[in-house]
Amino acid sequence: MSNSYGTLFRISTFGESHGLAIGVVIDGCPAGLVIDETFVQSELDRRKPGQSRITTQRKEDDVVKILSGVFEGVTTGSPIALLIQNEDSRSKDYGHLAETFRPSHADFTYDAKYGPRDHRGGGRSSARETAARVAAGAIAQLLLRKYSVSINAFVSQVGDIKAPDYAQLDLSKTEDTIVRCPDPVTAEKMIALIDQVRLSRDTIGGIVTCVVKNVPIGLGEPVFDKLHAELGKAMLSINAVKGFEYGSGFAGVQLRGSEHNDEFYNEGGRIRTRTNHSGGIQGGISNGEDIYFNVAFKPVATIMQDQQSVDKKGNEVTVSGRGRHDPCVVPRAVPIVEAMAALVLADFVLRSRASKL
Amino acid sequence: MSNSYGTLFRISTFGESHGLAIGVVIDGCPAGLVIDETFVQSELDRRKPGQSRITTQRKEDDVVKILSGVFEGVTTGSPIALLIQNEDSRSKDYGHLAETFRPSHADFTYDAKYGPRDHRGGGRSSARETAARVAAGAIAQLLLRKYSVSINAFVSQVGDIKAPDYAQLDLSKTEDTIVRCPDPVTAEKMIALIDQVRLSRDTIGGIVTCVVKNVPIGLGEPVFDKLHAELGKAMLSINAVKGFEYGSGFAGVQLRGSEHNDEFYNEGGRIRTRTNHSGGIQGGISNGEDIYFNVAFKPVATIMQDQQSVDKKGNEVTVSGRGRHDPCVVPRAVPIVEAMAALVLADFVLRSRASKL
Amino acid sequence: MSNSYGTLFRISTFGESHGLAIGVVIDGCPAGLVIDETFVQSELDRRKPGQSRITTQRKEDDVVKILSGVFEGVTTGSPIALLIQNEDSRSKDYGHLAETFRPSHADFTYDAKYGPRDHRGGGRSSARETAARVAAGAIAQLLLRKYSVSINAFVSQVGDIKAPDYAQLDLSKTEDTIVRCPDPVTAEKMIALIDQVRLSRDTIGGIVTCVVKNVPIGLGEPVFDKLHAELGKAMLSINAVKGFEYGSGFAGVQLRGSEHNDEFYNEGGRIRTRTNHSGGIQGGISNGEDIYFNVAFKPVATIMQDQQSVDKKGNEVTVSGRGRHDPCVVPRAVPIVEAMAALVLADFVLRSRASKL
Amino acid sequence: MSNSYGTLFRISTFGESHGLAIGVVIDGCPAGLVIDETFVQSELDRRKPGQSRITTQRKEDDVVKILSGVFEGVTTGSPIALLIQNEDSRSKDYGHLAETFRPSHADFTYDAKYGPRDHRGGGRSSARETAARVAAGAIAQLLLRKYSVSINAFVSQVGDIKAPDYAQLDLSKTEDTIVRCPDPVTAEKMIALIDQVRLSRDTIGGIVTCVVKNVPIGLGEPVFDKLHAELGKAMLSINAVKGFEYGSGFAGVQLRGSEHNDEFYNEGGRIRTRTNHSGGIQGGISNGEDIYFNVAFKPVATIMQDQQSVDKKGNEVTVSGRGRHDPCVVPRAVPIVEAMAALVLADFVLRSRASKL
Repeated sequence: MSNSYGTLFRISTFGESHGLAIGVVIDGCPAGLVIDETFVQSELDRRKPGQSRITTQRKEDDVVKILSGVFEGVTTGSPIALLIQNEDSRSKDYGHLAETFRPSHADFTYDAKYGPRDHRGGGRSSARETAARVAAGAIAQLLLRKYSVSINAFVSQVGDIKAPDYAQLDLSKTEDTIVRCPDPVTAEKMIALIDQVRLSRDTIGGIVTCVVKNVPIGLGEPVFDKLHAELGKAMLSINAVKGFEYGSGFAGVQLRGSEHNDEFYNEGGRIRTRTNHSGGIQGGISNGEDIYFNVAFKPVATIMQDQQSVDKKGNEVTVSGRGRHDPCVVPRAVPIVEAMAALVLADFVLRSRASKL
Repeated sequence: MSNSYGTLFRISTFGESHGLAIGVVIDGCPAGLVIDETFVQSELDRRKPGQSRITTQRKEDDVVKILSGVFEGVTTGSPIALLIQNEDSRSKDYGHLAETFRPSHADFTYDAKYGPRDHRGGGRSSARETAARVAAGAIAQLLLRKYSVSINAFVSQVGDIKAPDYAQLDLSKTEDTIVRCPDPVTAEKMIALIDQVRLSRDTIGGIVTCVVKNVPIGLGEPVFDKLHAELGKAMLSINAVKGFEYGSGFAGVQLRGSEHNDEFYNEGGRIRTRTNHSGGIQGGISNGEDIYFNVAFKPVATIMQDQQSVDKKGNEVTVSGRGRHDPCVVPRAVPIVEAMAALVLADFVLRSRASKL
Repeated sequence: MSNSYGTLFRISTFGESHGLAIGVVIDGCPAGLVIDETFVQSELDRRKPGQSRITTQRKEDDVVKILSGVFEGVTTGSPIALLIQNEDSRSKDYGHLAETFRPSHADFTYDAKYGPRDHRGGGRSSARETAARVAAGAIAQLLLRKYSVSINAFVSQVGDIKAPDYAQLDLSKTEDTIVRCPDPVTAEKMIALIDQVRLSRDTIGGIVTCVVKNVPIGLGEPVFDKLHAELGKAMLSINAVKGFEYGSGFAGVQLRGSEHNDEFYNEGGRIRTRTNHSGGIQGGISNGEDIYFNVAFKPVATIMQDQQSVDKKGNEVTVSGRGRHDPCVVPRAVPIVEAMAALVLADFVLRSRASKL
Repeated sequence: MSNSYGTLFRISTFGESHGLAIGVVIDGCPAGLVIDETFVQSELDRRKPGQSRITTQRKEDDVVKILSGVFEGVTTGSPIALLIQNEDSRSKDYGHLAETFRPSHADFTYDAKYGPRDHRGGGRSSARETAARVAAGAIAQLLLRKYSVSINAFVSQVGDIKAPDYAQLDLSKTEDTIVRCPDPVTAEKMIALIDQVRLSRDTIGGIVTCVVKNVPIGLGEPVFDKLHAELGKAMLSINAVKGFEYGSGFAGVQLRGSEHNDEFYNEGGRIRTRTNHSGGIQGGISNGEDIYFNVAFKPVATIMQDQQSVDKKGNEVTVSGRGRHDPCVVPRAVPIVEAMAALVLADFVLRSRASKL
């Protein structure tokens, strides 16, 4: 089922939305890294449900426990197992879904692929699995701090409301608004839109933009495992993601080469580019400029409305929205995007150690 | 350097643009598959340079030779090695680039990561490497034919000229125009634009759209190796690709959940969806509807103009465009996109054999 | 650190001897397998310390809990996480070892490779890690039962006391004696020897022989991942193992080809061999005959005697044996060998599904 | 089919005994390594048939050509493809074997697993595949020289004739005799035995011992990928190998812990062990002492005598020995064992770079 990600810094997640626990095992974290447990927990808190009126009201404390691999606060090179008990699992909310295929959910495809599944709250296909990624990503971020890498994601679009280009934003303000857009004016409009969508018992999509600064030059493997190809895979593996672009992205196709090319210059001994349509990556390898990319999230599939569908036997049924869900997933997706970016980069940092003699 | 791709149907490519040869080893192709060598060669011919006035005038015959793994025309389960000799390698065209970092090429990052490199024609970073992928992808397509899967890519955008939605096109007409757009009117405009760009010694980007039909239900591993995540990685690993989206893609973020959800219905015993914003993939697993996705290509970095840059020592230099290059890469990218899609799907077909008891 | 094993049926273990818990995540177990939890626990019980006077007196209940991947008693295709809490961890027994390198233990090499380690009870290098393997191996055995495969290991040698050839033994009697040798006369001698060694505060090595019957023809990948090569790696990865041989093994080097070759014959439509020096594997692939192999275990390194050594700073120190340890590891190693064999075979059963069209 | 080996220094071999060519692609060799092509060829020459009267008289020049990854004599970090054309392929010698299962060969198991195979000279199952390993292993040896590692294998046993312990031998004399045993007296006896076996149209087994000196402390991953577990797998993956032991090996099971333990002492600031029953590996990790291990080879299955067998349809047939084969494989196995050891160690050298912060 491929519940693992990474080559040298490798994570394996497990657990279902309403099972006993979810968790992750990190294999390959170098020995000697001081683990700030408070930071790990705080990243989980950024992802957890019930943070504000624009996220699901489901309450989960998501307390992470480190079972192994850390001794007296420092990694030992042994696998780091992180466990999060499931607590508020109102399974009865989901009993009616055992036989039903909800529109644009994974119910039908899981059933076709595996047969009977843990249907409670989406089981393994629930976005709850991403809590394990966030916990592991926090460890990856601690590793990346040793290299001064900083990763900042934010909500750049909700529906048709767009934030300005990241270069014009103060990314330290992302956490100032519940929608996680660092531009206060745009944030207000986004929140208003989400409120309106929520009241109409509907959902809306959005875009998370991520900016990575101070990336060491030389990360990424230049053929199949290009840095942006792995970032793309990592982002596309997050629930509800429909698209990924980096640097000039889709808009870049309309440019001429003479406009798009990033000229090199010598900035006091450091080779830099005057523009950055390359998005910090050339030939699949980081060049030291900012890496930036966009991740498109579809509207959440669970809506508080009646929908037509079929059940396992092929009978037509009406699916009525119940439970507690997000009207817009992007605010809570911000730490998930950061976590996956950190996992990709931490892996490449280790892999790059073997490039040269 | 990670020159391999795939889990069970796994390819490893090798070779530089102006070395002795390029090639690929396929490990994991099931035994018993009849190999149509003519088809493999014809796919290579679709990718090769010099096909028309809108592609590079570089001539390469790209004749593929099967060294192993096929006995009396049938695969044996042993690795299939495919070799393509390099012929027309005017290395002297590139001699002046040994010390220069061309803008928006991989020269600088390769140098930083590996030190001295084979600079001739881009060496390993040249798109010539994709010939090996196309050869391997043709074998994958032969395997997929056993499952009736069809893969059709075409040029859907060049610069700002866009083709209609794929549902309105006759994909059997893709090869009818040199730009590989199945809509003749759009194709003409695209060709005119590329001609104009070429005459201005510049380049332009574009989009390749790919449509996969008759995909078996149940392909894709639902957590990290989601079907669309692997497709995304595979596409982003192609030279010059800046973005990937599937199904509703980036446009989908503006939809409401009630608009975006694909309702299920029972079509004579087969469970289908009325719309297909999901792009044939739900929860990372194919649902049997068409898979369709877009791949954004930037304008080719090599332009026939002078550009400012630096050399290895940090000196400012002028890079003058020479050699023979494509004004627009997307027509030749069509078979590459198809090949990578085939490699992803062939791998998942084999992986899916282990899903159930 | 590579705490994972297997390609399609893949396990990842975690945990230290005296940490909070140990455990394992199984990724790739097919959906639809009924899980007999009692069997999983009973396999752990066979491995646990304190079973008899010839094993360590350390008491651990080793209760396994299934956290995920099993729904209503059946596997879902999702990762199966198994957790075993650590209970009787008298860490103070080990406090004196934090800075000391015990002879023939992993203290020195872990310190050199990773720096500070969890030294308590050997930490990650403790054979306690094998409990996780036994739990996962029990799941693999449940899968193999679907193919009628049976795996039986037993103690065939302790010190210089050897059991007869397996063909002359009734393997159903292995559990009848505390030393797990199915021959009662040999077992008695083995137990007497272990008793004597234990009283002299020393330890002794031994051999575990494993016999696998009803193996499907065609398991094993014939070049690097030969069936016996993976069995060898799996066995050599068990703590204290020094050697592996299968079929005729080391003794076979003295035979002539004319003696060693196994002639084929037709037994009522089934192709069989008259002798089985091949040990059921030819060219790395199972041929349907019994697979049998020997695994050599060195004497346990922890002895109840004073030994000379050095500490982290290079000072000479005396290491005094303390704690509770096994005088001979092979009786408890029997279920570990079976578990590792099951993991290898389960993986190859799944891998073999992709061999042919 | 798993024709790849290694994690970071990874090889993929291809080719059949009587196809167009065999070869290997090395992915992950660090950039900046000077390649001595003469050394690579000389290693191949040590393995090639027809070297002396005690090896097969089949003549193959086995000229290796470097297709990629090396530029101006230095590795670039790109995959290194090595190609060896097949020349002296007297396929007609093998025509009669297309339908026959030779005793103790891989014919039957390949047929069962894959269906029709390239039967000529054993096809993919031929030991010819090891030429590719030797070529790749030579590159690995060049890498290991940077770490001063030396690898020396020799023939320590043929039939029942055994050489003294390696510590009493001058390993620089291995190449002085055609049997590759550094002890001249033993060598003479071995040669006499092989001559006698050859004249009786039979074959005989033997043991290759390998000694690795100056291994950096800290190589090996301590759980599943223990250094000796990977060495074991690598050796067991060589054709005709039946057993592997390291350090005290099978003999060690008869020792008491008090005899077997290797006491540490401080030798002028370097921590060493007084004895080396551990074989240079503790807890799966190298400790800086000599690594030594034995590899048992069965007698070659092809004998110049009539044998009873069956064909594909189950009919009883007589297999008559033809072709040109080795009466004893171990002299030519020496460079193969060294190559596989080098591949294992080179991989662990690279992997160890990620152990610590």
